[in-house]
Amino acid sequence: MLPKSCGTSWARTTSCSGFVKFDAAIILPECTNSEGITPDMIDPRVAGGLRDLPPSASIPRERMLDCFRKSFASFGFLPIETPHIERMEVLTGKGAGSEEVLRQIFEVNNKGGKLGELALRFDLTVPLARFIAKHVHELGIPFKRYAIGSVFRGESPGKGRFREFTQCDFDTVGTESVVADAETAAVIYDALASAGVPKFTISLNNRKVLDGFLDMIGASDRVGGVLRALDKLAKIGRARVLEELSGAETIDPDPDKPPRVALLSVTQAERLLAFVEGGRGDGDEVLSRAASELGTNPRAAEGLANLREVWRILMSAGVPRASARIDLGLARGLDYYTGVVYETTVDGWERFGSIASGGRYDDLASLFTERRLPGVGASIGLDRLLALLEESGGLGRSSSPAPVLVTQSAGVDAAVSMAIAVRLRRAGIGAEVFPDPIATGKQMAYGSSRGHRFGLIVGPDEAEAQTFRLRDLATRKELKAIAWVNLESSVAEALQFQPTSPS
Amino acid sequence: MLPKSCGTSWARTTSCSGFVKFDAAIILPECTNSEGITPDMIDPRVAGGLRDLPPSASIPRERMLDCFRKSFASFGFLPIETPHIERMEVLTGKGAGSEEVLRQIFEVNNKGGKLGELALRFDLTVPLARFIAKHVHELGIPFKRYAIGSVFRGESPGKGRFREFTQCDFDTVGTESVVADAETAAVIYDALASAGVPKFTISLNNRKVLDGFLDMIGASDRVGGVLRALDKLAKIGRARVLEELSGAETIDPDPDKPPRVALLSVTQAERLLAFVEGGRGDGDEVLSRAASELGTNPRAAEGLANLREVWRILMSAGVPRASARIDLGLARGLDYYTGVVYETTVDGWERFGSIASGGRYDDLASLFTERRLPGVGASIGLDRLLALLEESGGLGRSSSPAPVLVTQSAGVDAAVSMAIAVRLRRAGIGAEVFPDPIATGKQMAYGSSRGHRFGLIVGPDEAEAQTFRLRDLATRKELKAIAWVNLESSVAEALQFQPTSPS
Repeated sequence: MLPKSCGTSWARTTSCSGFVKFDAAIILPECTNSEGITPDMIDPRVAGGLRDLPPSASIPRERMLDCFRKSFASFGFLPIETPHIERMEVLTGKGAGSEEVLRQIFEVNNKGGKLGELALRFDLTVPLARFIAKHVHELGIPFKRYAIGSVFRGESPGKGRFREFTQCDFDTVGTESVVADAETAAVIYDALASAGVPKFTISLNNRKVLDGFLDMIGASDRVGGVLRALDKLAKIGRARVLEELSGAETIDPDPDKPPRVALLSVTQAERLLAFVEGGRGDGDEVLSRAASELGTNPRAAEGLANLREVWRILMSAGVPRASARIDLGLARGLDYYTGVVYETTVDGWERFGSIASGGRYDDLASLFTERRLPGVGASIGLDRLLALLEESGGLGRSSSPAPVLVTQSAGVDAAVSMAIAVRLRRAGIGAEVFPDPIATGKQMAYGSSRGHRFGLIVGPDEAEAQTFRLRDLATRKELKAIAWVNLESSVAEALQFQPTSPS
Repeated sequence: MLPKSCGTSWARTTSCSGFVKFDAAIILPECTNSEGITPDMIDPRVAGGLRDLPPSASIPRERMLDCFRKSFASFGFLPIETPHIERMEVLTGKGAGSEEVLRQIFEVNNKGGKLGELALRFDLTVPLARFIAKHVHELGIPFKRYAIGSVFRGESPGKGRFREFTQCDFDTVGTESVVADAETAAVIYDALASAGVPKFTISLNNRKVLDGFLDMIGASDRVGGVLRALDKLAKIGRARVLEELSGAETIDPDPDKPPRVALLSVTQAERLLAFVEGGRGDGDEVLSRAASELGTNPRAAEGLANLREVWRILMSAGVPRASARIDLGLARGLDYYTGVVYETTVDGWERFGSIASGGRYDDLASLFTERRLPGVGASIGLDRLLALLEESGGLGRSSSPAPVLVTQSAGVDAAVSMAIAVRLRRAGIGAEVFPDPIATGKQMAYGSSRGHRFGLIVGPDEAEAQTFRLRDLATRKELKAIAWVNLESSVAEALQFQPTSPS
């Protein structure tokens, strides 16, 4: 019998489904060949909750990040980078961090280091706070930065939830300006639109409005619980949120659990839900209706004034009216933020949750500096967005960023193919040379599988005639003969004549 | 007295130089203000060997990475990403890893995980090997990939040596083609040239040539030691390498150390050094001279044939003759690689060492799969390259990627400034709106410090006249009046008329 560890390793790595019975003397050749892994080898799997991104995933990802960077930069946000590893104290706030954070944190150490001193960052906001506290004197304020990078959380992996994922954050620190509030939503719009995300809606709220409403109905001491219940509205529906808010009997009450404590009376809960449900839509309408409902409550008035101004400026900032709305029931993040908040969903794909969220905070770096640093910012959830686009078919087929595959032939000097590729690249046309002079059909098949648009065939006859054949790899049709003398212009013409734009 | 830990924290974070004497009752206000950190706060420093990259460092970095990505892609290399965290077994090769690797590795764990199971990657080659073993059946070969990312090594930090740094790797896996050998050098050239790296030289060698030479002089059993000694030639000079090779007495021999064992006789060592010193320069010259010196040694002949073909194809692949050379004494990496090797130095800055290195390997993923996967690739050392460019003044002044700063004024609706910026951005001109309507002079000072090229002044008079003032922030000169009606074309014209190209 095989040692257990080898058997385990084998069972994990073989592509044969089910449980494989074998002993040391009998290695199933098809299985060994199909994966090429024998029991004494190291299993090439990644750890649980982590993943490889092959080109089909990395190409649209890079394209999207490139759009985000250009968008952020066009608004004057500057890139910064901080290390993936931070001092534990920075991440946990001297133990002031939540139990949730502590449980999910990845500790890091090496020989000579003490465990518990270093850890992987779990977001980009804490590193920003540390960074700005350290560098604000050189950098000055306002400071607009963006940061794109991996963050790490040891949560139970699940569908679409990974232990390493990418955040794309931008923040304007050191100002209380409502212009920055509006601009943050404008950046969300510009970044997503420039990356080709289909019709989406940015929802805005301000926690002062809900605070004011709860104050008005005499429930200002129960804000936290109310917000948590409201947050579930889209997920569990009106009836169950009403039940949770008012503590009414469940249809099938669990005798083992203590009876629920009512957060609100049924009347209060109904009023709140009506307010929230009427509080969604175009800013001008929703905000004037809310103003009459909320009367003279000073906190609500402050929140409404902010939202009105954010909405007004936003409408002059290039965001189509149909891509933004006020949602006075938007509760998520209100625990953390102190002013305007944002969430963004793709229309028809709301169940994926928000793909870009953020808000205003009173004081970013109070753990690290006495200097008060108010600010506003948001984060685009790249992984969720890509998962959504993949599921909705919005990603399209990924293809090689080099549109032309130049073949090699045993009868032709490789230098000819190389020289052709150099000329195309200098004209801005990506060109790959197949490395081996194998059968042309096999080189074409490689080009099709990689997503090259054209094969440029360089055989002995073509080299002799100094005229090469251009083949469309999707249709397999021969397009035209390309003469050496006007190589660049002919290929460029063929690329432009394609009815679909190069992706 | 203050508790020791607070005192320590204070001493580390204050910007006041020297040792600060104080007690709990006396907080020096200038110091507290200058950093804003009080003793009960968390020190915002990064851990030893790690660093923050502010915009002045991140902007040229991103620009360079963007050039590299475009260059890699134009040759048909496709991006992949692998997790920062790998299973320990993958990184250490089931304990077969070197002591050096084990000592430098950062272990990673979280509550519930066992220490020693996971670790941070220390390069991008081991993850590539694992990736290709896992995915080769879907991806097929040849497989050309690039990967850019952070790697982590717990070595003693020093000047220019960090515990987290960026590697930019590209590899062609699954072919023994000499075309791929030549292309690898062509990609190094294209990537560095496109990123604006000043005059540099790519050196090529093939370990079979040195093997053959050592065989010829009867020293084929001492290759390892000889290569290690040769590697020091640039650093310690001819005399000391000769000494190390031949074991001759040092000028000041250390009586406590055992006498050195001679690797070669003085005659052998002199012959080797003469061969190596005559083995640097233009490929055609060096290789024909070496061929006559090496006679019929079959291993040397194999190496020379490879280098001759690599050189010939390289000269047709867009690489200027003056940017490449053969260096038959190039020893670094020969331990690891099995065919051609590359190193790249910036002319006049050789002391910085190689900024792009690589070579050919016989079998990439033998730890993970039975399938033999030969390949060739190289890695650009981004951090070293940027350090070199900074020291040589090649980076220039970093500036905001948004050339125009649009001001705000208390007397003008913020929506006007926002609308101007939207129009400029839609015309492809990055434009930032200052978030607060403070004094225009202060907004201009902000623009100068961030490196905006122009300030577009939107005051009450300008808004009234629908004509705005454009100020050059470097010269502080008013350029021209910009009318609302032809905003985009006027600003674009001003940008183009600038004698220096926008950086």
